[in-house]
Amino acid sequence: MTTSAPPSPAGDPAAIEEGTAFTPKFDADGLIPAVATSGATGEVLMFAYMNGEAVARTLETGEAHFWSRSRGKLWRKGEESGNTMRVVELRTDCDQDVLWLKVELGGAEACCHTGRRSCFYRTVPLGGGPGQAVTLEFVEADRLFEPEQVYGHARAAKGTLKTSN
Amino acid sequence: MTTSAPPSPAGDPAAIEEGTAFTPKFDADGLIPAVATSGATGEVLMFAYMNGEAVARTLETGEAHFWSRSRGKLWRKGEESGNTMRVVELRTDCDQDVLWLKVELGGAEACCHTGRRSCFYRTVPLGGGPGQAVTLEFVEADRLFEPEQVYGHARAAKGTLKTSN
Repeated sequence: MTTSAPPSPAGDPAAIEEGTAFTPKFDADGLIPAVATSGATGEVLMFAYMNGEAVARTLETGEAHFWSRSRGKLWRKGEESGNTMRVVELRTDCDQDVLWLKVELGGAEACCHTGRRSCFYRTVPLGGGPGQAVTLEFVEADRLFEPEQVYGHARAAKGTLKTSN
Repeated sequence: MTTSAPPSPAGDPAAIEEGTAFTPKFDADGLIPAVATSGATGEVLMFAYMNGEAVARTLETGEAHFWSRSRGKLWRKGEESGNTMRVVELRTDCDQDVLWLKVELGGAEACCHTGRRSCFYRTVPLGGGPGQAVTLEFVEADRLFEPEQVYGHARAAKGTLKTSN
């Protein structure tokens, strides 16, 4: 199947903000940021980038596709891990340069390559002053799968694990 | 008050992913993406970027600060509109290159410069095939304030409105 990338906008702010034509704005690298939240709980699960083909495939199939910057290739979320991501609703923002995916997780319902449900498993405490070290706190950090078992020891050791989920 | 930018990580994946040291990773422009969601409803409200000083100010004050790429300056959310953004919880992701802010809105409780609660007031219908035009649908798009009254006609006409909320 051939896929065509949606066009970039012509640049009319009123049309972009108040119009109904979907004209996603890609950055200089041809990418648009995408935020995935759980359709069930509203929590932020992950953040990644899409290129035009990833947007087109996501629209066509309803399965989240992204562009791996480190691997330089399109990937369907869960293609290796089985932890798929079905898009329940897709939105764009006022200036159409960000996408928001409300999703339903498949597989182990773990979104993060570390085995956790969400990539955002640590909080950053507020109140620190200038120059103070900030200590993260783990929250909702249980692993739902073991990365080594899913991705393999070799790839984990090579440091390519991050981009393979 | 002087503010120091948190350091970029030394590059050890295990320390970044499994450690407790907050070492936000800024991109080549010195920025890190930040997603703001409502602490009450979980909806995504806006997406913006922070530089080191914006991160530091946000941590110190609990009020969301961002870096305006178009204006080239730090801004405290709501400094002009009154629609402030108090951070209820801050999180970072596995590789510490994204921030997630759970927030409580002040003022008119409108986050978007168009006067709407969220910047994500349009859905992108799924199911379109290659080459098909995609028509956005407005949802939750009521305006809670009139942009011209808040930001002024002159600035709206100059097209600088987007960066002033």
